[in-house]
Amino acid sequence: MNFTRIQQLQEKMREAGIANQVISDPSSIDYFTAYHTQPGERLLLLIIFADKNTHQLYLNRLFPTAELDQDLQDVIEVINYNDGDPILNKIAQSLAVGPTSIDKLWPSHFLLDLLAIDNSIQAVNQSHLVDDMRAIKSAQEQELMAQASALNDQAMEQLIALIAKGLSEKELKGHLEDIYLSLSGNSFSFEPIVAFGANGADPHHETDGTMPVYGDSVVIDIGSSYKGYASDMTRTVFYGQPSDKALEIYNIVKQANEEAIAAIKPGIPFSEIDGIARDIITKAGYGEYFTHRLGHFIGRDVHEAGDVSASNHQLIEEGHVFSIEPGIYLPGELGIRIEDLVIATADGCKVLNHVTKEAIILDVNKAE
Amino acid sequence: MNFTRIQQLQEKMREAGIANQVISDPSSIDYFTAYHTQPGERLLLLIIFADKNTHQLYLNRLFPTAELDQDLQDVIEVINYNDGDPILNKIAQSLAVGPTSIDKLWPSHFLLDLLAIDNSIQAVNQSHLVDDMRAIKSAQEQELMAQASALNDQAMEQLIALIAKGLSEKELKGHLEDIYLSLSGNSFSFEPIVAFGANGADPHHETDGTMPVYGDSVVIDIGSSYKGYASDMTRTVFYGQPSDKALEIYNIVKQANEEAIAAIKPGIPFSEIDGIARDIITKAGYGEYFTHRLGHFIGRDVHEAGDVSASNHQLIEEGHVFSIEPGIYLPGELGIRIEDLVIATADGCKVLNHVTKEAIILDVNKAE
Repeated sequence: MNFTRIQQLQEKMREAGIANQVISDPSSIDYFTAYHTQPGERLLLLIIFADKNTHQLYLNRLFPTAELDQDLQDVIEVINYNDGDPILNKIAQSLAVGPTSIDKLWPSHFLLDLLAIDNSIQAVNQSHLVDDMRAIKSAQEQELMAQASALNDQAMEQLIALIAKGLSEKELKGHLEDIYLSLSGNSFSFEPIVAFGANGADPHHETDGTMPVYGDSVVIDIGSSYKGYASDMTRTVFYGQPSDKALEIYNIVKQANEEAIAAIKPGIPFSEIDGIARDIITKAGYGEYFTHRLGHFIGRDVHEAGDVSASNHQLIEEGHVFSIEPGIYLPGELGIRIEDLVIATADGCKVLNHVTKEAIILDVNKAE
Repeated sequence: MNFTRIQQLQEKMREAGIANQVISDPSSIDYFTAYHTQPGERLLLLIIFADKNTHQLYLNRLFPTAELDQDLQDVIEVINYNDGDPILNKIAQSLAVGPTSIDKLWPSHFLLDLLAIDNSIQAVNQSHLVDDMRAIKSAQEQELMAQASALNDQAMEQLIALIAKGLSEKELKGHLEDIYLSLSGNSFSFEPIVAFGANGADPHHETDGTMPVYGDSVVIDIGSSYKGYASDMTRTVFYGQPSDKALEIYNIVKQANEEAIAAIKPGIPFSEIDGIARDIITKAGYGEYFTHRLGHFIGRDVHEAGDVSASNHQLIEEGHVFSIEPGIYLPGELGIRIEDLVIATADGCKVLNHVTKEAIILDVNKAE
């Protein structure tokens, strides 16, 4: 599988006129080689050559040893280096011929030092060749993402039951970690949000000892991972009977979520999907309180390159996996967001989250 | 204070022949402007000009609003932009004249897109102009770091008492977060390590449900933050009477820690300090099991630019703050590490951690 992916990338590189693809994103390296580590500040690099049969994987000796699959052992040369070795000199030699695409997130100091060694290196930003491949999930990847989200549905149900018990945000976060560990053995894929009342409207709120107040909205934005693939969903519930206004806003967000999802199919621009949700919220008078894009791509990483926003005119393709997460945030008052993950299919999309989107009003004591 | 720092940087820039300093590291931006945010994938940039009186801070409108101190309001022009704005065009215009130092960690795609707009921009890697300033802590910063480490000492004492109760690694991590929150209101400054027995020798071990076994070494590498400054210390204790070999190794590591600290003073190369600790461990026969550098710089970030390693021949200066953390790791068997933070003074150093370095053998039941 990994060998096939490398061959696909080579084809895309040749079409784009790229001779060398410099890949530093650990998830992308994992995607092509099944080797995974977090390099910290050290250099971790995979170079794929469009017109060669042997590629290069640069590993610091402090990283875990690479145990490549059989089909990659003759295809990838593993170059182990020590701290202090002049490894960029060797890399510069490998990039001497033809245009080189530099990973979009590679720290600039590596690139500048490389150009200082050889200023004839033709560095360009064509990371999207890799990102575009990763964005289209294979049948196997889709199955893993569906399983990851099924576990996330279970975690959400368990967490909502605990919210009714009147715990603090921080206590709920602690329980959520236990829930994930018991379900899959993995912890959070991102810092979870469990935000009561006005906290749910503050994009910079950090989980703290806040206790729920009767009638609060509760934004619950949570995710974990399963076999290397991330989950991510949001539900907003109410800690006791909310105001009519809160319920009205809830239903606007729910409508935005549902109509955006109903419109998803191959050939439609992502910007159009964003527009459908945004129009509903704007027409209801809350446009200025929907302060972010409608969604983001997801896979091995919670946020992958690509989004559902007014500026992304790319067309939806079968196998794209992304979030649909409209929200309305009234500062000092409340936050409402409803988020599902979806997979674009041949004629629509498959929604990966199944926790109800009907308003959940928890039966709690008003005196508390 | 921030204005003075900007003036100091301008002086260093003129000496180095740099016209424009592009700063993207959120901690460095905080250092010069007292504005702090985590920009995620969006552009956050401070540009300091060597020969101008007004500098530029680029903020996405989704970031918190900048409320600059009085002394900076005429010095820094805040440029707010929206997603989709051609903000790099404006930045390219600002960098048209003279050599430009690019932040070492700026994602390459920004730099490549900037060079695609104007390939006459003279981009170089002179991040160290900023890093060198941040590395020398002022009296006020030193006081905050001492306070942060005093709190960490208290946390370590409390955690060691809990270890004696026979909890799992994961349970101890949970308690440690509560300890930090009660001491300072802040959580971890890095993912803490509480590793029993052979887990302490595995650099890739993640905290899990492992329970202690009688005689285990317990590596405890923990830190939090206080008023924006990080703490970081390691102690290794024993869960019941260890083997003679483990105690022997403990004392080698302790000697390496103490002799390295005793040698610290301005004018000595960091590499020499690393060598003192490494020689002690090597002569005792464990050189190959001391697998990392002796220490790292620390301040606003747990790991700042600069380290105590064989390859850093920079001279110690008064006000440098760094860790001294020798260790010996026998795979499948045990890990021992002892880490203190120190501040270089005029004639030596001040050690910020005061938890005993004598071997602590917890009085636990062998039957457990």
